[in-house]
Amino acid sequence: MTRLEIFQQIIKKRSFLCVGLDTDVNKIPSFLLKEKDPIFEFNKRIIDATKDLCVAYKPNIAFYEAQGPKGWESLQKTLDYIPENIFTIADAKRGDIGNTSKLYSSAFFEKLNFDSVTVAPYMGSDSVTPFLHNNKSVIVLGLTSNIGSQDFQYLKLESGKRLFEEVIEKTKSWGTSDQIMFVVGATQAKELKTIREIVPEHFLLVPGIGAQGGDLVSVAKNGFNKQCGLLVNSSRGIIYADSSSEFDVVAKRKAKEIQTEMDKLLNEYGI
Amino acid sequence: MTRLEIFQQIIKKRSFLCVGLDTDVNKIPSFLLKEKDPIFEFNKRIIDATKDLCVAYKPNIAFYEAQGPKGWESLQKTLDYIPENIFTIADAKRGDIGNTSKLYSSAFFEKLNFDSVTVAPYMGSDSVTPFLHNNKSVIVLGLTSNIGSQDFQYLKLESGKRLFEEVIEKTKSWGTSDQIMFVVGATQAKELKTIREIVPEHFLLVPGIGAQGGDLVSVAKNGFNKQCGLLVNSSRGIIYADSSSEFDVVAKRKAKEIQTEMDKLLNEYGI
Repeated sequence: MTRLEIFQQIIKKRSFLCVGLDTDVNKIPSFLLKEKDPIFEFNKRIIDATKDLCVAYKPNIAFYEAQGPKGWESLQKTLDYIPENIFTIADAKRGDIGNTSKLYSSAFFEKLNFDSVTVAPYMGSDSVTPFLHNNKSVIVLGLTSNIGSQDFQYLKLESGKRLFEEVIEKTKSWGTSDQIMFVVGATQAKELKTIREIVPEHFLLVPGIGAQGGDLVSVAKNGFNKQCGLLVNSSRGIIYADSSSEFDVVAKRKAKEIQTEMDKLLNEYGI
Repeated sequence: MTRLEIFQQIIKKRSFLCVGLDTDVNKIPSFLLKEKDPIFEFNKRIIDATKDLCVAYKPNIAFYEAQGPKGWESLQKTLDYIPENIFTIADAKRGDIGNTSKLYSSAFFEKLNFDSVTVAPYMGSDSVTPFLHNNKSVIVLGLTSNIGSQDFQYLKLESGKRLFEEVIEKTKSWGTSDQIMFVVGATQAKELKTIREIVPEHFLLVPGIGAQGGDLVSVAKNGFNKQCGLLVNSSRGIIYADSSSEFDVVAKRKAKEIQTEMDKLLNEYGI
């Protein structure tokens, strides 16, 4: 999907919500465990409940990988079940030498047909460029939401820039603003403004709302551009809000609360 | 395995060779394609041919992931087939927030029973520490062998250090020298000396010999410590040296050539 196509969905749904499918077999309601594929069954009901309120789904690949081969089957079925007009993100944080990145690109874009993949920047250009394709996006880690982001991402360079600024600045030149997005944690809202200046047009994927403590109002204030430019992710706050047989009803209510706040913010900023 | 256990294997086999199982269904001899699981069949024959000449195997996870669920089955069977006293490395280059790294750790250490996993450092401490376990190793990307290593790893920091030096310096404090190793590309031999000064005791995993142009003599000269301290990887130069039905015989010969050179170097340095 292009930026314009994502923006059109945002306008139509009055939402820039991404629902994180961090589906953990130990956390899903126990009544689902009798199903043949409990993880897919859980995802299916979450998708049915939230598909009108979000514009993206982001399965965190670790949760599927931890299940071995059957986890990959649950992931494939989940992908096939997501409606076509919803943007899909493989949260995989891959990154390797060129010929290997090409294989990861084939795994996520061709085998599984994701619209985008998250990628770690440490290995540089040839670890990122194999993910550049028409109509697909590579989402590069810029400034992450976790405590460990302090260890290296904020390092001050001789040039005066901080490492995350250099990463975003350099990476943006490797493809178009339709092909590249950046991860910027919601817990880093005050840096969102700096990043928005470096990449005024790019979409930013913002995890860390809810469980990780990020705040939607500051994210919108510092991160919006004219085409919204934000995909804000919530995982645990929606999918694990309830553990009864009504979990999907509660997930829908939680997603609706966020979508309502997003609609308000879009209106406030004239989007 | 501890450093001492790996060292004992090195002394016994007079080899510090790691064979990279970058097994690509498009590159293996075509006669294997009639087998039920061609990838496992190929690996099995490579392992049979090389197990007395190497001390480690390193499947590159991308190659298995690109095959979907059946790739994970081939990987599991390969792991189960590798003799117990050979160190196993999941070349996965993972790295995510704490709860997610924990799942990757479980996937590679518990489900698949690897001895070690390669991890990207960009997300900092909480992306690395979940991989710390007794008797397991986390192998952090220090200075990689690819062209893209120039983009960020060499960046000069305000402190005067370069990013890869800071990464290695900081990361080594997160665990013991039995728990942590570093990836240092063979193409970066002149920097191996600097890195060896920062981490005199740690094992270094050195890819890039052969196809990527690294040179074993300089690697040994700059990287050896008293317990060898090096695992040097070769993938394509061994496993794809021949594409006939004799591919395993040729792989053995290629591995033997490297092992002979390694034996000579170990002798030369009194190890």
